[in-house]
Amino acid sequence: MPLLTTAPRGTQDVLPQNSYKWQFIEKTALDTARLFGFKEIRFPTFEHTELFNRSVGDTTDVVQKEMYTFEDKGNRSITLRPEGTAGTLRAVLQNGLLNDALPQKLCYLVSCFRYEKPQAGRLREFHQFGVEMLGSQSPSADVEVILLAKSIFDTLKIQNIDLHINSIGCPKCRSEYHKALISYFNSYKDQLCETCQSRLEKNPMRILDCKSPVCSKIAAGAPVVLDYLCEDCQTHFDKVQSLLKACGVSFSIDPHIVRGLDYYTKTVFEFVSQNIGAQGTVCGGGRYDGLIETLGGPSTPALGFGMGLERLLLLLEQTPEAYPPEKRCDLYIAPLGEEATAKAAQLAVGLRQEGFRCEYDLMGKSAKAQMKYANKLGAHFTLVLGDNELQTGKAALKNMDTGEAREVDLETGVLSALYDEGIAQTIHNITQDIEHLMKEER
Amino acid sequence: MPLLTTAPRGTQDVLPQNSYKWQFIEKTALDTARLFGFKEIRFPTFEHTELFNRSVGDTTDVVQKEMYTFEDKGNRSITLRPEGTAGTLRAVLQNGLLNDALPQKLCYLVSCFRYEKPQAGRLREFHQFGVEMLGSQSPSADVEVILLAKSIFDTLKIQNIDLHINSIGCPKCRSEYHKALISYFNSYKDQLCETCQSRLEKNPMRILDCKSPVCSKIAAGAPVVLDYLCEDCQTHFDKVQSLLKACGVSFSIDPHIVRGLDYYTKTVFEFVSQNIGAQGTVCGGGRYDGLIETLGGPSTPALGFGMGLERLLLLLEQTPEAYPPEKRCDLYIAPLGEEATAKAAQLAVGLRQEGFRCEYDLMGKSAKAQMKYANKLGAHFTLVLGDNELQTGKAALKNMDTGEAREVDLETGVLSALYDEGIAQTIHNITQDIEHLMKEER
Repeated sequence: MPLLTTAPRGTQDVLPQNSYKWQFIEKTALDTARLFGFKEIRFPTFEHTELFNRSVGDTTDVVQKEMYTFEDKGNRSITLRPEGTAGTLRAVLQNGLLNDALPQKLCYLVSCFRYEKPQAGRLREFHQFGVEMLGSQSPSADVEVILLAKSIFDTLKIQNIDLHINSIGCPKCRSEYHKALISYFNSYKDQLCETCQSRLEKNPMRILDCKSPVCSKIAAGAPVVLDYLCEDCQTHFDKVQSLLKACGVSFSIDPHIVRGLDYYTKTVFEFVSQNIGAQGTVCGGGRYDGLIETLGGPSTPALGFGMGLERLLLLLEQTPEAYPPEKRCDLYIAPLGEEATAKAAQLAVGLRQEGFRCEYDLMGKSAKAQMKYANKLGAHFTLVLGDNELQTGKAALKNMDTGEAREVDLETGVLSALYDEGIAQTIHNITQDIEHLMKEER
Repeated sequence: MPLLTTAPRGTQDVLPQNSYKWQFIEKTALDTARLFGFKEIRFPTFEHTELFNRSVGDTTDVVQKEMYTFEDKGNRSITLRPEGTAGTLRAVLQNGLLNDALPQKLCYLVSCFRYEKPQAGRLREFHQFGVEMLGSQSPSADVEVILLAKSIFDTLKIQNIDLHINSIGCPKCRSEYHKALISYFNSYKDQLCETCQSRLEKNPMRILDCKSPVCSKIAAGAPVVLDYLCEDCQTHFDKVQSLLKACGVSFSIDPHIVRGLDYYTKTVFEFVSQNIGAQGTVCGGGRYDGLIETLGGPSTPALGFGMGLERLLLLLEQTPEAYPPEKRCDLYIAPLGEEATAKAAQLAVGLRQEGFRCEYDLMGKSAKAQMKYANKLGAHFTLVLGDNELQTGKAALKNMDTGEAREVDLETGVLSALYDEGIAQTIHNITQDIEHLMKEER
């Protein structure tokens, strides 16, 4: 396999004909989050390895098997982020964001990295939209975060996606549950994979999300944490359910959801689609009331979710009409010769300043080849510039949809003719209106 | 230094109060590029190391000193991208994009990674907007790419930024020039740094951009490549200059620009600001007519630029009014008690579906604390929900700018009252208009 022309295994390119889909999904997610008061935060692609060991948990598959960890030239151990919560919280603590009025509502768009076996919907570099809400212990915060995820799916017109919820309790209920798990798994100890045998005493819940087929099968019959909730956790979970119902959100309880990261507590949830194969979890999240304190911050209840953008794309491939169309080229100028090309460049400068998408030949193509290219671009209008046009200062502006042409003055007429015609400038004007309104609002 | 709460040296966070600035700059760059017909491409954060050795060049500072190179768990040598051109071209070749009608016009927003000494405007993880135009050897392509960079600066209302251009010729003129350089540097051989001594025979042009103070001083007196251009390269450079003038772009010729990467040929350029200290180059680029063939593709002329977003931000800090204001919270609902919170959640679901930004208390705050929080958010309207309001089904919608209040019916009146008032829904309607127009256009 030639290294020069092959992307590293488990990574993928987004080609120019598809990038508008990503732009649309990301904008929808950010815009929807803004309606809920979530603001974007950004943080580095890599962090000190210790951050993930401590937060994701050193008995998880992610830390034990999947991290891209290496030493930089200063001999620091750094790791490409395998998820977004740890980096967010590190940034929050480093920058004192918990001193602001709470809850702090944050969202982010990130690449994440896990060395897993690549398959449909599972890449080694994958992309997430994530949100974190810090500071509220109220069940209404759980519901708000779930409503946000649902609202993104609704806005994208994604159907057949089911919400599954569970509670995995707090450290108090967990200690009873761990005893039950250890006792259960001990009877199968010899059949468990080596990693799970080592997890048995230290963190038996991690056996529940081991990907080895034998361990998964054994785990399916294990006791479920829902039967071990303390009174506080049970009340919290009941309130989450009644609030979801009050907001018209349907859900089912799946006592087998535990999530693959150590930091979760109480409510955990997943949005699952049956339409994209085995990797059907498009969004997963939950509470992590102890994590901020674990990282050295003040005790602060919190929760969040991560939404897999590759999987969202897979879902949307089934409804391609979900995407807005790409903006067409407004005007393609076809210059013949060097002098005409200089004129085309001058015209383009002025038109683009007014917000028109304008292109012209940069290849020295023939007139015929240029018109073919204009058609391929889907240009609304074309303008051929030959010797005659340069001499007379007039040219024919042709509407490519109707075939009609009108004569325009090259110095003074192109812009106003475009303003007379078509739809592009309408959108442009409206965009200006918005900017105007926004300035007034300020 | 606590690893858990400190970002790796040379990286930085973008906090929620600043992220809208990044969003604005990125959107401006992508929108402007679209007016020129450039579409976004995305490619992985890391590539096989061999790609950068071959393209950036194994005698460059970047490859010799600055790359984040490591082995993954499959023993592949991979490197976090130090720049965007190599990954773009790898993706282009792997996906056959040169089979489309040329020129292929691509742009991207990426993180890049270089292990350098961090200072103002120079980070180890930094961000670039880049463009590449593949397939045209015409000087008009050089000008088009420069016009695009300039158009982004103009749209961002950035002033006092100067365009410097140079030509570093093709391999033909380069061979004469190399001889002259070797002869010049040989007289200072003992004073050059070790790396530059090793570069002397292999690639003497790299000495010209060595960052060591002694080497830089010696390099300042070296022969300049402009005096060694072949006829073709001289003609090309002359045409670039006359086209720039025809388009009203002012520039100066700086014979010392060589760019720090091996792949450049003919035209190279930089946009430099005097306003942000020593790292004043906000955008740099040029032709790389031989690179695609070097990577195993067909011989294809090409060029591009990279624009440093951190430095752009530094520039824009000097004109904060350049940024559009953030959208305010349209309605803050202040519920008192659990039942009221459920009602607030229900109301919010409906309002957000209509595009209103709506928030409500998730902390169990007192009425007074909630109004303080609403003020902090800059909410346009507030609605207090207490026992009385729940009982009567009516509440007071208060305009926070004017202090005026009106009674609204909770079941039927909130949405229509918001539609009556304020500015938020105007923007929302206009947005809907655009979507409508876009659909028609399709």
